[in-house]
Amino acid sequence: MRQDEFSARREHLAAMLPALEIDAFLLSHLPNIRYLTGFTGSNALLLLTRFEATLFTDPRYTIQAQRETQCKVAVHRHPILAAAAKAVTRKRYRAVGFEPAHATYSTFSYLREKTPRSTELKPVTGAVETVRMVKSDAEIGLIRAAVLTNSKALQQALKRYKPGIRECDLAAEIDYQMRRLGAEGTAFDTIVVSGDRAALPHARPGMSPIAADQLLLIDMGATQAGYTSDMTRTVFAGSAPTRWKQIYHAVLESQLAAIAAVRHGAPASSPDREARRVLKAHDLDRYFTHSTGHGLGLEIHEAPRLGRGEKTKLQAGMVVTIEPGVYLEGEGGIRIEDTVLVTRNGCEILTPTSKELTII
Amino acid sequence: MRQDEFSARREHLAAMLPALEIDAFLLSHLPNIRYLTGFTGSNALLLLTRFEATLFTDPRYTIQAQRETQCKVAVHRHPILAAAAKAVTRKRYRAVGFEPAHATYSTFSYLREKTPRSTELKPVTGAVETVRMVKSDAEIGLIRAAVLTNSKALQQALKRYKPGIRECDLAAEIDYQMRRLGAEGTAFDTIVVSGDRAALPHARPGMSPIAADQLLLIDMGATQAGYTSDMTRTVFAGSAPTRWKQIYHAVLESQLAAIAAVRHGAPASSPDREARRVLKAHDLDRYFTHSTGHGLGLEIHEAPRLGRGEKTKLQAGMVVTIEPGVYLEGEGGIRIEDTVLVTRNGCEILTPTSKELTII
Repeated sequence: MRQDEFSARREHLAAMLPALEIDAFLLSHLPNIRYLTGFTGSNALLLLTRFEATLFTDPRYTIQAQRETQCKVAVHRHPILAAAAKAVTRKRYRAVGFEPAHATYSTFSYLREKTPRSTELKPVTGAVETVRMVKSDAEIGLIRAAVLTNSKALQQALKRYKPGIRECDLAAEIDYQMRRLGAEGTAFDTIVVSGDRAALPHARPGMSPIAADQLLLIDMGATQAGYTSDMTRTVFAGSAPTRWKQIYHAVLESQLAAIAAVRHGAPASSPDREARRVLKAHDLDRYFTHSTGHGLGLEIHEAPRLGRGEKTKLQAGMVVTIEPGVYLEGEGGIRIEDTVLVTRNGCEILTPTSKELTII
Repeated sequence: MRQDEFSARREHLAAMLPALEIDAFLLSHLPNIRYLTGFTGSNALLLLTRFEATLFTDPRYTIQAQRETQCKVAVHRHPILAAAAKAVTRKRYRAVGFEPAHATYSTFSYLREKTPRSTELKPVTGAVETVRMVKSDAEIGLIRAAVLTNSKALQQALKRYKPGIRECDLAAEIDYQMRRLGAEGTAFDTIVVSGDRAALPHARPGMSPIAADQLLLIDMGATQAGYTSDMTRTVFAGSAPTRWKQIYHAVLESQLAAIAAVRHGAPASSPDREARRVLKAHDLDRYFTHSTGHGLGLEIHEAPRLGRGEKTKLQAGMVVTIEPGVYLEGEGGIRIEDTVLVTRNGCEILTPTSKELTII
């Protein structure tokens, strides 16, 4: 990412401060700080005003911060919150914004105690997150790379599949392949679940061997150069029972209908409505128990949520997942998920992995 | 872990409520909730009173929660915080504790708004963390298993070492081996850094090949059945320059002196003092820029901190790391770290990996 992209983002946010009725914004959510500065360390605060941005961090990151960011860097051995509170006090701001969903109560009460009573501390929600929804070309390039790593890793890991392998071992293979292909790590704990456990949308890989003639649901994502990807495929180990083949095709039809509803200007709820409409026609809608998708980027779950009641309009440059599923308790489940880029005229499916019914 | 261990812990905490001057304690920190209930899901709140404990979670975890815990389970589709706030309101408690370092400002202000003014919301710090410092036999057993996985994984990964391998590939091997040996994952991002980058205590594995005749610092930990381990070894790839051999032996002497200071009743600061005393004798103490160790368990960093000014006394059953290091900017660094169990008469080094100077 070029430094001028970070500085443009800071300027954009700085220009929003008057409308937010704050003179300064003290950010603590690390993905927001990375978005605005490029800094990738694990301990930072960012104090942003109309004309200046100061990154607070500790001595472990002195060299790294200077290398990664062009904004002013303040290194402090003691808690960096103390240094930030002093900076706020020195400037006697009228109103300072903070991130209420990320700042702990301890952080807030420390700031309240150490800054002048005349300084209002104002909760500001979603300001950076809203900007982050629409990705730049550079960001889309990084997401594409994470998506490709994801798909290639699945392909390579499935080569190692043999009857009797454990879910946890296949998950370990997947994670290993993502790392070999350039990922820093997984975007979330890889899900590899077979048989009736595939009915649990958030089950963890188990320690017992994958039995013959089972469904195998794999949900995986890579984090590469900070950006994430997300993909689910459900394959059949051995043979596929007719009923599950039918459900597979219904979920795929639902997913394709949802994708067809993705375009600039459409409400973020419309792919979800389409996914449910198709499943209803197959009398399967009541088994689809989560929403259809979510944005991703520096975090694996970002705005917008693609579900009922979501008011946001889709915009070109958003990157979202489309992932309907059908889960029959005690029997199994199928989910099919791609990472998708919203474009002017529709969308581009970034995930290249085939969605044909696959028997391994 | 047996269910009676979890219920004994809840009773122990419940008995502390009067001294904390609260009628109920609303816990939000997941490791504390796991410690008290056995629940391993990613979304939970625990409302504990003198005679009852209620775990709030969402429908994804209905079956899992019933399987993992014996306390009362309340499943809610809407934000579980709303359900917990309603429970607090219904009971009209006089004072409810919350965890200020883990509850966000949003959580606190939601609770404040939705519960009666007559209910005091009281920040309670470290109550569970203090109990968690001393491990039970069952916990020590789980930590031993995580430590063994850690050591075996390093041994197996180092077999794959060959000149020219990249730091990131060796890190991927290490993580893969830990998973194959039974870990759910890493306890933290594995550090594999060579040459002058070993001078950065928190550097990430790089993408360039490990050059010949370099220091190689490896800091790794496994999470297995929820419990963590932590180990650092510094080895020499190719040959070891005389100066770095000397520093290696000084750091090892420092580490052994710190270990010798670990025993029931000693201040948690004493291993740190011993580690520094030895390094000072070698004129290296100013290059030791962090504290000597930390507790571990369900989290990789727990109380006590083994550093200057720490007032806690070591107690039999605590599990801590001992990890002095020497870092020369622009040149390299050496750190040697074991996971150690405090015993009545001294300590037991859990980590079996050799600390002999090793050339690979």
